[in-house]
This record gives sequence, structure tokens and C-alpha cells, in this order.
Amino acid sequence: MMKSGPAEGGQLTQDDPRDHKANWGISISDLVMRAFAALGTLTSTVVMGTTDQTLQIVSQFFLFRRARYNDLPTFTFFLTTNAIVCGYLTLSLGLSISQVIRSTVKITRIILVILDTVMLALLMAGASAATAIVYLAHKGNAKANWLPICQQYNSFCERISGSLVGSYFATIALVILITLSTIAISRC
Amino acid sequence: MMKSGPAEGGQLTQDDPRDHKANWGISISDLVMRAFAALGTLTSTVVMGTTDQTLQIVSQFFLFRRARYNDLPTFTFFLTTNAIVCGYLTLSLGLSISQVIRSTVKITRIILVILDTVMLALLMAGASAATAIVYLAHKGNAKANWLPICQQYNSFCERISGSLVGSYFATIALVILITLSTIAISRC
Repeated sequence: MMKSGPAEGGQLTQDDPRDHKANWGISISDLVMRAFAALGTLTSTVVMGTTDQTLQIVSQFFLFRRARYNDLPTFTFFLTTNAIVCGYLTLSLGLSISQVIRSTVKITRIILVILDTVMLALLMAGASAATAIVYLAHKGNAKANWLPICQQYNSFCERISGSLVGSYFATIALVILITLSTIAISRC
Repeated sequence: MMKSGPAEGGQLTQDDPRDHKANWGISISDLVMRAFAALGTLTSTVVMGTTDQTLQIVSQFFLFRRARYNDLPTFTFFLTTNAIVCGYLTLSLGLSISQVIRSTVKITRIILVILDTVMLALLMAGASAATAIVYLAHKGNAKANWLPICQQYNSFCERISGSLVGSYFATIALVILITLSTIAISRC
């Protein structure tokens, strides 16, 4: 935003109290949303990691009695990405708090936008890959002769489907965080 | 960046020629990278859309002789997301050109960062979901009794695997575009 006004003592007065207040509001929103996003990825990680179902009846089509997340590499990838993003979001709370204290400092916002973008890509990769496999587990694919396994492993499928929610919530939160930070940088 | 200097006629001189030049350089990089990213998604869309293999030999395990992208819903999703992002990147070249002409205008950069972020999430969703299915087609999953189909559909699998490259290239390009735009906004 272009700022104009009288200069005082040869030094430019860049500070506009309205922008200060708006950026402080953005910093608070950033902190709250980041904490919720961290909670979302934590929930996803825990739910996926603790999903475990042992079948009572085993048909000829299924070679495993017990279903866990690591039976499918995509779910291991999902768990890993969620754990990494959860760790990052938790650590980044420190930078977010520093923004609340000093809401006009640009450099922390720039660093957060770049890291948030990378984490958004990573989290979306994990969530989307897991969704593709969850979809296949529910629906199967007749053309490729991949049978749906959710008819057997219903509790397993319910939990892994549920674990995606926290991850997608965090994805949306990251998009909003990047948007807010960008607006805040333009005002600094 | 804080700028200081003598005020002229009560109006602040915000323009620093070095920042101008740097932002002009970023605008040029944005334009070139955006064009390459559009080309990447276009290639992915075309390769996925035209993949078609008809088997000479059909075993008892496979119910389809002909393999096309729309046999698997995930590949249709991949194609759709790539087509949308390709369309967006092509249209956004207009805004990118306007940035080259007027490299100090913030609002177009802010709009591009927000839209680029949404498109990055969308593109990554498509690419990652398709990768999960391509991986399954190559390796199969013994635990879920999903057999690898690439042993039969080798040419189909090669092409769909190849089609992912353009999409991932565009994903990396979008992360760089967001980074560059954020730096440019902080300098405006």
C-alpha cells in the first residue's frame, strides 16, 4: 500500500495505526489457525497410527486377518506427511507468537509463507494419495479386478476415512494462513 | 523493507531503483516459469487423455481388453485437475505480463499468490492421487489381494507414469512462483 504524508525529521513515517491493528489481528488469527491445523494433523496421525482391526471371518480372497495402516504403503506415507506437518506447525507457533509481539516484522512472515507453501504441498500429497486408496478400498475397481476390501474391513475403513478429515482441515487452514500472511506482508 | 530518505514536496518517495529492477526480474521469471508450468500441465493432460492400450492376450484375471485413463476414476480426476490448472496458468499469463509492464503494482501479485496457492493444492491432489494408483498398478498389494496390472498393461503403465512428470514439474514451479511473488510483494 502506498503511504503518503508529511515526513518528520527527514525520516519517512511508514507506520499507519490502522495497518498495525489489522496486521496484529492477522497475527492473532495466524496463531489460532496454526494451532488448530496442528491439532488436525495430530488427530489424523494418531487415528491412522492406531487403526487396527482383526477379522473374525476370513474369506478366500483376503490374505490378511489383521488390518493396520502399514499394510498399505500409501497410509504409511499419509502418516509420515501428517507427522512432519504437525511437527512443523507446532514449531512454527514460536514464529507466529513473535509476529503477535512484533506485527510489523516482514521477514518472519515471508519465511512462514514459503514454509507453509511447501508443507501445504506435502500434506496435500499425503491426504490425496490416501484418499485415492480409501476410495479404492470402498468401491474397488472392476476393470482392474481390485475388489473393495471395506466390505470385510468395515471398522478399519471407517477409521482411515475419518483420519482424512483432520488432514484436509489442516490443508484448508494452510491455504488461509498463506493468504493472510501475504496480505499482512503487503501492509508491512 | 523500511525505506528512508528525504521527502520531496511532502510526498514520500517509496521507489528504490534497485527494488524496481529486482521486481522487474521477478516479473520476467514469473512469466517464463508460468508458461513452462502451463506447458507441463498441458503435456500431462494430453498424455493421460490419449493413453490407450488394447491387449492381445487377456488372462482370466483381467476383465478389460482395452485400457484407458477413464477406467480408473483417479486418472479422470488427474486429467481434470491438470486441465483446470493448465487453463488457469494460461489465463494468468495476462496478469503476469501486466506485472512485467508495471512491476510495482501489489494487487495483481497478491491475487496471483492466492490463486497459485489454491491451484497448487488442486494440482498436488490430482498428481498425488494418480501416483498412489500408478504405484498400486506397478506393485499391487498382496495384503489386499490387489494384483499389479502393469505386467499386462505395460505400455499403458509407462504412459500414465510419464504423464505424472509434467504435473510434478508444474507443482514445483508453482511453489517457486509463490515464493518469488511473496518476495516481490515485500519489496513493493
